[in-house]
Amino acid sequence: MSKAIVLFSGGLDSTTCLALALTKHAEVVAVSFDYGQRHIVELERASKIAKKYGVEHIIVKIQNNIFQGSALTDKKIDVPNYQGLDTIPVTYVPARNTIFIAFALGIAESCAASAIYLGVSSVDYSGYPDCRPEYIESFQALINKAAPDHKIKLTTPLVNLSKAETIKLGLELGVDYSETISCYNADKDGNICGTCDSCTLRAKGFNELKSS
Amino acid sequence: MSKAIVLFSGGLDSTTCLALALTKHAEVVAVSFDYGQRHIVELERASKIAKKYGVEHIIVKIQNNIFQGSALTDKKIDVPNYQGLDTIPVTYVPARNTIFIAFALGIAESCAASAIYLGVSSVDYSGYPDCRPEYIESFQALINKAAPDHKIKLTTPLVNLSKAETIKLGLELGVDYSETISCYNADKDGNICGTCDSCTLRAKGFNELKSS
Repeated sequence: MSKAIVLFSGGLDSTTCLALALTKHAEVVAVSFDYGQRHIVELERASKIAKKYGVEHIIVKIQNNIFQGSALTDKKIDVPNYQGLDTIPVTYVPARNTIFIAFALGIAESCAASAIYLGVSSVDYSGYPDCRPEYIESFQALINKAAPDHKIKLTTPLVNLSKAETIKLGLELGVDYSETISCYNADKDGNICGTCDSCTLRAKGFNELKSS
Repeated sequence: MSKAIVLFSGGLDSTTCLALALTKHAEVVAVSFDYGQRHIVELERASKIAKKYGVEHIIVKIQNNIFQGSALTDKKIDVPNYQGLDTIPVTYVPARNTIFIAFALGIAESCAASAIYLGVSSVDYSGYPDCRPEYIESFQALINKAAPDHKIKLTTPLVNLSKAETIKLGLELGVDYSETISCYNADKDGNICGTCDSCTLRAKGFNELKSS
């Protein structure tokens, strides 16, 4: 019976990963993080979606004042509108994916899971270094040294997909994207800004799909 | 002004690392973890030692029920006496060092530190895979991809030292080892068992040094 861990924010990408993992594994555990993010509403959405799919949902609480200097965790720094910059934007949270995957590895070892799903993309993305294929390859190499007695595959099925291609895949899998939330600025009621990187890339994806 | 993060348990090895880092960096931040370890007394010792050295001390609290199946976090599993096995012992905590280094990376990025010190050794050690040189090399490769705009060196000065050699180094640096605690079974008052891996390797180190 193969088991998978899905790093799960309740957003468009990780919900697609969850739906995909459920087609390939007998058991799936969704893992979310409460890390002081301003868009804390995503955890409510994540819980609802995990419940709908009938999967175990672990929320790891990380002390809030660890992540400094990011617009996603520091309310004194505004989330900028989409700019499509080549540099790392202020919404980057230092080592966030490294910490998330590290926890997923610990959980995977503890419960004998053979895969960790991570919904990163390096096509329509915010330019974060910890979303790129070379980062994922390095983490796989680390996992092989860290847990040599397990065979754990870091699985990133969306890494080379555009947002439109991800949405197409999710729709084929029956994902209801109205249940997901992606906005960096979402308030506690789930109202979105429509202008941040995440909102812009999401809208671009749906628009491209419609016109394709 | 170069700055270093020291992963700091208040034990023999990490206290030696702290003393060494202070000779090489203008500023040092000690980072400890409250992860539900049975030898929680180590955090008190860590705080006292950090205070004595006048360094900032961050204690990251990690939700207690994440680490399963280890004698160090599950009171239903006894810590065995030293056996010198070739297999991974039951005191291994899944992905512990991976999670610790991931947090240190986030803190290093946030405060522009150029080094992360980790007091692992692969000579007199418990056989944990996440203490070996090939694991450290893989993590350095990952850091280079995760934080390409920073130059952060994962520094393991003890990795090829025996326990006796580490103690010799620490004594030259003025470390007072009576302030440190290493026992996996230590109670809240700091009473040690004298028989676990950690106690055995520590005593072996002092004995080798005396007879050398």
